[in-house]
Amino acid sequence: MAADPVASLFSTPEMDSIFSASNQLRWMARFEWGLLSALEANGLAARRAASVLEALLNVEFLDLESLQEEAYRAGNMAIPFVRQLTTAVAKRSEEAARALHLGATSQDVLDTALVLQMSEAFTVIRRDLELLDQHLVRQIRTYADAALAGRTWLQDGPPVTLGLKIAGWLAAIRRHRERLDVAESCALVLQFGGAVGTLAALGDKGEAVSAALAKALDLREPDLPWHSHRDNLGEVGASLGLLAGSLGKIARDVSLLMQTEVAEVFEPGGEGRGGSSAMPHKRNPVGSAIILAAAARIPGLVATLLSSMVQEHERGLGGWQAEWETLPQIFRLTAASLARTVEIADGLEADRERMLANLEATRGLVMAEAVSASLYAHIGRDRAHELLQEASQRALREGKHLREVLLEMPEVCGHFSEGELDRLLEPRNYLGSAPRFIARVLGDSNAVR
Amino acid sequence: MAADPVASLFSTPEMDSIFSASNQLRWMARFEWGLLSALEANGLAARRAASVLEALLNVEFLDLESLQEEAYRAGNMAIPFVRQLTTAVAKRSEEAARALHLGATSQDVLDTALVLQMSEAFTVIRRDLELLDQHLVRQIRTYADAALAGRTWLQDGPPVTLGLKIAGWLAAIRRHRERLDVAESCALVLQFGGAVGTLAALGDKGEAVSAALAKALDLREPDLPWHSHRDNLGEVGASLGLLAGSLGKIARDVSLLMQTEVAEVFEPGGEGRGGSSAMPHKRNPVGSAIILAAAARIPGLVATLLSSMVQEHERGLGGWQAEWETLPQIFRLTAASLARTVEIADGLEADRERMLANLEATRGLVMAEAVSASLYAHIGRDRAHELLQEASQRALREGKHLREVLLEMPEVCGHFSEGELDRLLEPRNYLGSAPRFIARVLGDSNAVR
Amino acid sequence: MAADPVASLFSTPEMDSIFSASNQLRWMARFEWGLLSALEANGLAARRAASVLEALLNVEFLDLESLQEEAYRAGNMAIPFVRQLTTAVAKRSEEAARALHLGATSQDVLDTALVLQMSEAFTVIRRDLELLDQHLVRQIRTYADAALAGRTWLQDGPPVTLGLKIAGWLAAIRRHRERLDVAESCALVLQFGGAVGTLAALGDKGEAVSAALAKALDLREPDLPWHSHRDNLGEVGASLGLLAGSLGKIARDVSLLMQTEVAEVFEPGGEGRGGSSAMPHKRNPVGSAIILAAAARIPGLVATLLSSMVQEHERGLGGWQAEWETLPQIFRLTAASLARTVEIADGLEADRERMLANLEATRGLVMAEAVSASLYAHIGRDRAHELLQEASQRALREGKHLREVLLEMPEVCGHFSEGELDRLLEPRNYLGSAPRFIARVLGDSNAVR
Amino acid sequence: MAADPVASLFSTPEMDSIFSASNQLRWMARFEWGLLSALEANGLAARRAASVLEALLNVEFLDLESLQEEAYRAGNMAIPFVRQLTTAVAKRSEEAARALHLGATSQDVLDTALVLQMSEAFTVIRRDLELLDQHLVRQIRTYADAALAGRTWLQDGPPVTLGLKIAGWLAAIRRHRERLDVAESCALVLQFGGAVGTLAALGDKGEAVSAALAKALDLREPDLPWHSHRDNLGEVGASLGLLAGSLGKIARDVSLLMQTEVAEVFEPGGEGRGGSSAMPHKRNPVGSAIILAAAARIPGLVATLLSSMVQEHERGLGGWQAEWETLPQIFRLTAASLARTVEIADGLEADRERMLANLEATRGLVMAEAVSASLYAHIGRDRAHELLQEASQRALREGKHLREVLLEMPEVCGHFSEGELDRLLEPRNYLGSAPRFIARVLGDSNAVR
Repeated sequence: MAADPVASLFSTPEMDSIFSASNQLRWMARFEWGLLSALEANGLAARRAASVLEALLNVEFLDLESLQEEAYRAGNMAIPFVRQLTTAVAKRSEEAARALHLGATSQDVLDTALVLQMSEAFTVIRRDLELLDQHLVRQIRTYADAALAGRTWLQDGPPVTLGLKIAGWLAAIRRHRERLDVAESCALVLQFGGAVGTLAALGDKGEAVSAALAKALDLREPDLPWHSHRDNLGEVGASLGLLAGSLGKIARDVSLLMQTEVAEVFEPGGEGRGGSSAMPHKRNPVGSAIILAAAARIPGLVATLLSSMVQEHERGLGGWQAEWETLPQIFRLTAASLARTVEIADGLEADRERMLANLEATRGLVMAEAVSASLYAHIGRDRAHELLQEASQRALREGKHLREVLLEMPEVCGHFSEGELDRLLEPRNYLGSAPRFIARVLGDSNAVR
Repeated sequence: MAADPVASLFSTPEMDSIFSASNQLRWMARFEWGLLSALEANGLAARRAASVLEALLNVEFLDLESLQEEAYRAGNMAIPFVRQLTTAVAKRSEEAARALHLGATSQDVLDTALVLQMSEAFTVIRRDLELLDQHLVRQIRTYADAALAGRTWLQDGPPVTLGLKIAGWLAAIRRHRERLDVAESCALVLQFGGAVGTLAALGDKGEAVSAALAKALDLREPDLPWHSHRDNLGEVGASLGLLAGSLGKIARDVSLLMQTEVAEVFEPGGEGRGGSSAMPHKRNPVGSAIILAAAARIPGLVATLLSSMVQEHERGLGGWQAEWETLPQIFRLTAASLARTVEIADGLEADRERMLANLEATRGLVMAEAVSASLYAHIGRDRAHELLQEASQRALREGKHLREVLLEMPEVCGHFSEGELDRLLEPRNYLGSAPRFIARVLGDSNAVR
Repeated sequence: MAADPVASLFSTPEMDSIFSASNQLRWMARFEWGLLSALEANGLAARRAASVLEALLNVEFLDLESLQEEAYRAGNMAIPFVRQLTTAVAKRSEEAARALHLGATSQDVLDTALVLQMSEAFTVIRRDLELLDQHLVRQIRTYADAALAGRTWLQDGPPVTLGLKIAGWLAAIRRHRERLDVAESCALVLQFGGAVGTLAALGDKGEAVSAALAKALDLREPDLPWHSHRDNLGEVGASLGLLAGSLGKIARDVSLLMQTEVAEVFEPGGEGRGGSSAMPHKRNPVGSAIILAAAARIPGLVATLLSSMVQEHERGLGGWQAEWETLPQIFRLTAASLARTVEIADGLEADRERMLANLEATRGLVMAEAVSASLYAHIGRDRAHELLQEASQRALREGKHLREVLLEMPEVCGHFSEGELDRLLEPRNYLGSAPRFIARVLGDSNAVR
Repeated sequence: MAADPVASLFSTPEMDSIFSASNQLRWMARFEWGLLSALEANGLAARRAASVLEALLNVEFLDLESLQEEAYRAGNMAIPFVRQLTTAVAKRSEEAARALHLGATSQDVLDTALVLQMSEAFTVIRRDLELLDQHLVRQIRTYADAALAGRTWLQDGPPVTLGLKIAGWLAAIRRHRERLDVAESCALVLQFGGAVGTLAALGDKGEAVSAALAKALDLREPDLPWHSHRDNLGEVGASLGLLAGSLGKIARDVSLLMQTEVAEVFEPGGEGRGGSSAMPHKRNPVGSAIILAAAARIPGLVATLLSSMVQEHERGLGGWQAEWETLPQIFRLTAASLARTVEIADGLEADRERMLANLEATRGLVMAEAVSASLYAHIGRDRAHELLQEASQRALREGKHLREVLLEMPEVCGHFSEGELDRLLEPRNYLGSAPRFIARVLGDSNAVR
């Protein structure tokens, strides 16, 4: 395939290969082989018919140009594919060609090929999720106690640790791993129903042929064909969309932390990475850009899958065709996003000093809650909150450290010694359950000393 | 609530009530009660503090107007809610009011209230899915052998049975039931993390308070707070979206079958149902209209949930707020759609004679595949297909019955007697595995005959 | 490019070529040429520097593989492109290479290349819309008086004419033509702002260079750079989305009219068109399938463009990248959809007899409104509607013609003679303003007789 | 209406009122009044029939509860509305009631009422856009020369001015103002076609009645009814969606600039604004949150409008109904977003010192391009870029100011005196065409001293 620099940013070579026309056609050939075997086993095809097809599974015999032309007129590519395959088989054995595609309809071939492509794609996604998991676990352990400002509504608040932040990412990733396993196992089922889903062309042998075909392709059989029932595919798309959303969240965090004024966490650098054609000093979050772009693009594609579920009767018009490029695109984008996230998770750089410096830079303000939380027992949560709000505003207005302001407020400092106040204002003393939460995510009790 | 005729079409009274402001506020009060109990149990609140709150759980004390005004400035309604609640509790017991909301942040209250509302909503959805299932099972049994044209690409093909068609719907509904059970059990978890998700305001008692709170509200605890990790909510939305898609498919089928020229299957009728202000003779598929509208609207809402997952740091800006009305809307639309589908499934009317008449009306054309499938053994599938294509075109061109044309084609009729041809052309003889597929879906072997 | 049968269904060779990597790169080279000319004219580049670049405008010098690799690390392909271009120019003239890309940033090159690609794409769309317009005008004239059932809520009602139906399509297409002209003229503007949109690297010559560059590329200049303001692109996407929606409406109409039981209007046929691998008799609406699929896919892509408008500061992260494949895809899908609609509009077949037969098949029911509308003067609209509703239901119930029922209802037939009733029940007498509406759309008063 | 604190955040009281059920019903009554007047003028209704209706235009006679109930069965609310209206009119004058709604269909009433509601809504949007424009102009003049870091890919670059940044916002807003004017003028057209769009019930008086009705309601007439052609409505939705995207961009900028570590620009503050229930020191960007949420929600709604354009035949099923709540929601969200943006634009606060401090904080790095741009004439752009990249990396690595590093690089400092280098490194000297761009946007040449 010719290089396409833009397209290559939003896919991976593996996904490109899995969802290439040639791989699709190979799986289509494999379907016809499986069907011929199943027909043979049920006495509906000549003996050894399927073995004739084996030499053609690489689909090198196909004339792609004419296939494309016929597909334009036929509205799908299974029809010309079956025609060309029949000719190729017939050249080798007229008898073998006789039963080719018997009982099947175009959508049987196309849907089952899609299922088999998805099976390959899931393997890739699963592997990368496993890798991502490992990298994240390592980073959590490294930064379990590295305090930085917690941030809400894009404003600094009391401290969290970078390990806790990453533990939040990991917990989401693990939910996605389970979710995708379910979606995969639901979706990887045979499609085989013939013209209208009754397998009528096979007389009373429909069930037997179907079972043999499923076995040949190593797929589960559904209770009945699902030509116009696309919920399983929709679920695959939605599950990948959910994953892409969580990856987007990670990229948002990283890119915000990487801002010049924050400068706490960085994507891995390296030669030629994130440069700018205008600004020589730049180090752009290029991985995050792709991940965020994927998170922006996939929701619309999932919406297409969902709205296309309204398919007519036994096999639909328009809705089915709307899926053809959409689902592969979701896989491509997710894979690209995931690969970038793996890179970031692997090579993440963090500047602990800067994190602390940023915490200090608010002059105690982000610790206001710590003081308020210690005051509540004396004066109630509500009054404590009010006082600290007042103190915070004064500190801001007068350019003072919160400590200084508090020491001048008797209703506050009457309850603490200066030493106690200092301890309250120390970010590392105000991490609450962060270590426990990390331990829960990691599933080990000795995660953090 | 004032009547709103349009809004009422896209929701149900139950869902309106579950996602009403007042119900939300009641659950928010319940959260504060649960928290106060948990604090009490851990020595962080005065004894019997929670019991003071019990009288306020109906939230009648709230001044909604001022709450709405403050919410505008505060950006969310938890802040004024907590303020008003604190005042109300303090009137009864200053001591009890002291620890109110201690350790929690606005999002803890709002998210947990949402979770509890969703729990109610899932109960409704589950009940209606169970009802739908029962009606569909009944209709499948009634129409298991009622033949009608299978239709693909909006063109008539060989016959299916109405029972098989409905079995396809049911199989999808059952997949949705499982899917929603998973989504529900993932989503119904406590949210409790305090300002930045560390529960730092509770010192070393965060975990204990959290556990007690979860128990009080009968919710599972997550490993760590999920303030900016919204995959579980996205999954709920997506799962409902998938369901709505399948309901849309049912409505599409019904409304197409109800077309004047088809007239095979009908929504239940009744006084004032589906009339037209201009056309006195009309019986419109009004239930299908709502179901299709819901199927058209939900995908965009799901896309919003997915794209809003990219939330910043410990608690996000914009993405979280984008969910507030979106998820309830998805529940409302799905419930309205489901309620209409239950009605249709319950009262579905079908005209068996018309089904057969429509099958006959193509003068044998839809049975072309049956002949072709019987010929393959003699002349190969490909050649058989070609011959029948030729015969079909001639039949169309010359306005003849396919039977007549075939009898003039020696390559075809050389292989069959007239009687055999008649048997081949009889739709009810060409239902293939339909009965078996129905039996598999119903899970009983004596489903049909 | 290798054949890709599926992808080819959702694009056209022209659009593939316009939005190919190589065409994009050629326009990028053209941008750099224009810039060099402009710099030269302003004394910022060596004399005749631009002319050196002319030999390279075919971008054959590029090493696409390494460009793709570098793009992965750089996050966009302009950086490696400029590098390779600089090297190629420098080989010819070191002096000419000096000022290459001076003052520009990657996004300037990429955005302006996109604008120039869009300019080509709009030419294609405009041409096909003109063609479509002509075909539709022809069909309107042909079928201006061809009566068929008007259909609402998928139920037959009083008659319209096929010409009127097509006039509705044409009126929409003409609105789109105006809309797209506006969108095009807004979007075809230069992008040139340098690193942060100030053209600071050009000192006080920014404006002059920008003006010269715009002139060289034959583009309008905006008031200021629009790196992170993407409304014009969004408008292009939305306008194409609106067009695709109207094309989808046409395809829906055609495919519904083509249903076996309706059989009034058909897509053009032809060798290999719309066949089925299982059903020899089928003639599938393959054009409609693609048009409907495009109408299902583009809305999600438009949503992506809209939600990606939230771009950060001077140049955004993620949102911009999300557009890269999305906007070209919208063009591709729209072009494929439009080409298919042109084919259908050109070769549309209609069966006037079947239209009338379908109108008759309801035994007068669809004419109920005609009777009711004539009764109102005697008994009021409301009562007339009620009576006809009653009559219609009786006709249905008893399998009678509406005429027969009405003749038995004194409150109705007291107002008409039998002859008058017959005239009322004749569909061709009840076309109201259809001829006038057609004439208005066609803009000629002698459109119909 | 009962207070609904969450819903009120995503709408404005004005929009709630415009799109309330009661306002819709009032406009529906107005339609029937206009129609009765038009019928009267054409001799199709009794004299003074319309005047009888005048007393009912406040729709107080309606029984909303029963209307809602009937709407459930009828599938739309026009049918019960017309019934109740007819009864109310008949009570006053049987004769006047006779011709009520004559010639019209439900969708005529509903669509035209929508058009009239939109007309009110556009007035509000236009007014707020005018206000926004004024505030932005004022802020541009105030901050025309206030330098702050330009930021691309969320990384600091060379300076821009806050005035330039706001000028970018304003230029977009002005494009939207034009765009919305076009969309409005296209959409505000009468809907009047009767059952199937032929006005057949009016015999040969359809055109005349239509013209008179349009005049009575002060609406343009279309060439023909547009019941199933919804591009104009889609355009309204898309245009509002584009506006909401640009508002989202403004909110993103503001909220990023308001981050604790950046702290350059702020939403207006005030009592109770942006507080946090947990963190006493917080000042949250609450306006931005709503604006961003609207920008996240509207794209999905626009997608729904687009995908719902595929409406069947003369009047569609599902697609039309999908618009009913969607378009009003888009107006509501846009209005809420716009109102918040007006507030922000009016009360925007900026900290010029902090802007400069942030520019300084990178120790010259963001000025690297300035040096590189001055070097190009000596050594070529490419080599200059390379050198500055090297210098920047060294500065970062060794914690030095870029100036210091450059002075040690002979290839650089050989071309400049120290004084020249200092001038190059001064941000305020590197604003390029910013003042000119501002002047272009403001349309005055004396915009900036």
